[in-house]
Amino acid sequence: MAIEVPAGFLMNGIAAGIKKSGKEDFTLIHCPGGATAAGVYTQNLVFAAPVGFDRARTPSANIRVIAVNSGNANACTGEGGMQDCQEMARLASAACGEDEGTSLVMSTGVIGVFLPMDKIANGAKLAAANMGSDEASFLAAARGIMTTDQFHKVVGKKLDIGGRSIRLAGMCKGAGMIGPHMATMLAIMLTDAKLSPADAQRVLKAATDESFNCISVEGHMSTNDTLLLVASGAAGGEPLAGSDLQKFQAALTEACIELAQQIPDDGEGASHLICIQVQGCKDQTSAQQIARTVANSALVKTAVAGADPNWGRIVSAAGYAGIPFKPEGVGLIMNGHELYRAGAPLPFDAKTVSQAIKNSRKTNITLTFTEGSVTGRFWTSDLNVNYVRFNSEYTT
Amino acid sequence: MAIEVPAGFLMNGIAAGIKKSGKEDFTLIHCPGGATAAGVYTQNLVFAAPVGFDRARTPSANIRVIAVNSGNANACTGEGGMQDCQEMARLASAACGEDEGTSLVMSTGVIGVFLPMDKIANGAKLAAANMGSDEASFLAAARGIMTTDQFHKVVGKKLDIGGRSIRLAGMCKGAGMIGPHMATMLAIMLTDAKLSPADAQRVLKAATDESFNCISVEGHMSTNDTLLLVASGAAGGEPLAGSDLQKFQAALTEACIELAQQIPDDGEGASHLICIQVQGCKDQTSAQQIARTVANSALVKTAVAGADPNWGRIVSAAGYAGIPFKPEGVGLIMNGHELYRAGAPLPFDAKTVSQAIKNSRKTNITLTFTEGSVTGRFWTSDLNVNYVRFNSEYTT
Repeated sequence: MAIEVPAGFLMNGIAAGIKKSGKEDFTLIHCPGGATAAGVYTQNLVFAAPVGFDRARTPSANIRVIAVNSGNANACTGEGGMQDCQEMARLASAACGEDEGTSLVMSTGVIGVFLPMDKIANGAKLAAANMGSDEASFLAAARGIMTTDQFHKVVGKKLDIGGRSIRLAGMCKGAGMIGPHMATMLAIMLTDAKLSPADAQRVLKAATDESFNCISVEGHMSTNDTLLLVASGAAGGEPLAGSDLQKFQAALTEACIELAQQIPDDGEGASHLICIQVQGCKDQTSAQQIARTVANSALVKTAVAGADPNWGRIVSAAGYAGIPFKPEGVGLIMNGHELYRAGAPLPFDAKTVSQAIKNSRKTNITLTFTEGSVTGRFWTSDLNVNYVRFNSEYTT
Repeated sequence: MAIEVPAGFLMNGIAAGIKKSGKEDFTLIHCPGGATAAGVYTQNLVFAAPVGFDRARTPSANIRVIAVNSGNANACTGEGGMQDCQEMARLASAACGEDEGTSLVMSTGVIGVFLPMDKIANGAKLAAANMGSDEASFLAAARGIMTTDQFHKVVGKKLDIGGRSIRLAGMCKGAGMIGPHMATMLAIMLTDAKLSPADAQRVLKAATDESFNCISVEGHMSTNDTLLLVASGAAGGEPLAGSDLQKFQAALTEACIELAQQIPDDGEGASHLICIQVQGCKDQTSAQQIARTVANSALVKTAVAGADPNWGRIVSAAGYAGIPFKPEGVGLIMNGHELYRAGAPLPFDAKTVSQAIKNSRKTNITLTFTEGSVTGRFWTSDLNVNYVRFNSEYTT
């Protein structure tokens, strides 16, 4: 899929030497004309310095520089960490020839280690020296924000709104510490649509609730989660409003869902992307809460890893979600095989269903209730020995 | 540790053929003089037939028979499952020569399969034929309730209350589906103390809150959790009251804590028992909630499995517990090594701390806050490749 970069942005991703591996670890995005920017952030009380920094600056009508480093989260670093974050903003702005007050910062990687400021300074200069607006520059930027991701995660859409051609392109990174209420991730959605700061904030929040807030890998809420929407307005015209704004919100939501699903699909060591659909609930909150609880059950996730149609684990996880329902109304379908109906097991061939799970990268779990007509979705990865191996050997 | 069986009970544990392995899978306890019984049960909406059966019968002043089978949970089995449970109660009562109305039933094992009633009938007769009141009979009974447990879990105490010698002996089983709000477990506390049904229920609930409600293996709440307190009154005298009752409650709590800790210590594949102590909180609920959240983090559990002093995962888990605290007041000690103080990392030798974790079966995590003076505790097991292997291959 070729990605058309929205007009009004220059970008680059380079290796600044923050990661020991020598891979890309610094991304710089420049919007010379100034952009509207909105942000959604981790709800963790223990949040990283750049989260506090960006939260205070968004929504904004004039953001020009976004600097991102991977390999170091600048989290749990106290007052010194906040000074480093401010200095990183200053260095990146200077490299782009912009005022420090128009910049945002994102960091991801190991917690509790101070940023190597000499490498950040060098990285900002290096990245600024070769900015571009083509797909190659966009992909370099997407690689610069990766940590343990096995593949870069991008999405691109061309929209026709109000007779104008509008581009929307997003990048994000997973892949560990993906928990409820924002995954452990960084994401940047760029568009050349014109948006007011308040509308940008509103549509971003709405899109998040149906996408990045509906994924988990292991349910651990991170210190650094940040999702930015940056709108250059280079497509021209007045800020989107009315049905045009609605159209944009729908497209943004779709793009965020496409991007968000790539995170559990690339969960550390994951062999299955698990899609949980909960039907027949009274309201959205109930449906999401049941889907989320099933998604976060280690017993459900290990069962999928082993291609084990162990429906008892799924039904019992729904039972402790804290949402009232009639147990005698519950049904369950896995990859098209109906295993449970009206609160009682159906006879099924375990080998056939096991093969169906084993042979598909995607495991679809549909839980049906008889409380109402609302549906909720949640995406997670399975839990296998590779995940445990990986996470037992991360820092030391 | 020799266990003295409380007076007034006869018991046995035998192999009835429910488990394919041929191991003990049926336990029968008889109290010919009648006993006071109290129960605490799973809060899962999807609860097994015997949970519904026992819940309706406790607290009671006249329980005489307790029948337990392992190898089959009789959960998610609908109306047929409840009929099987009632029949199991009838068969066990008949084997002991008691009225059906004085019996309780417990089941544990695979979900969604109907009980093999011929084996249950045979098991009840077989067990009743050789009941005893010695330690060997008690241990046989403890083995009869085991599922994936690697060792039987028992506790025994001799108390001197109000000039009377009182015995208290308990058995429980883990080891999978150990979640918040009652572990996935069965436990029976037997005593020859005399207790009123209301007091038995009250002291059991209080003991549970400090023991079985403070353990987890993977945070999955089971369909079958049941904890019974059965008091024969054979020690004589009036029902315990006032300071005597308080003494009994303290001893019961201590016994429940000793028993409960054995469950995560035997978590499926566990190589470490993790003890999380949270200090300096405003109230008990806050302290427990933070301890529970850290305990249920897969990233914390995998770090301990890998002997990785990855304190960032612990501090960030505390941050999403939903309890307000001052991040700049947080401190962390792991196995005696202070890693984090006043919201900032301390320099430490990672190899030394890693060795300290590796060389001890027990990992002590102490998190300190500056909100108040209340302490909470929670116990869990680490998460290693053996756990995942085991749980990927359970039913099929």
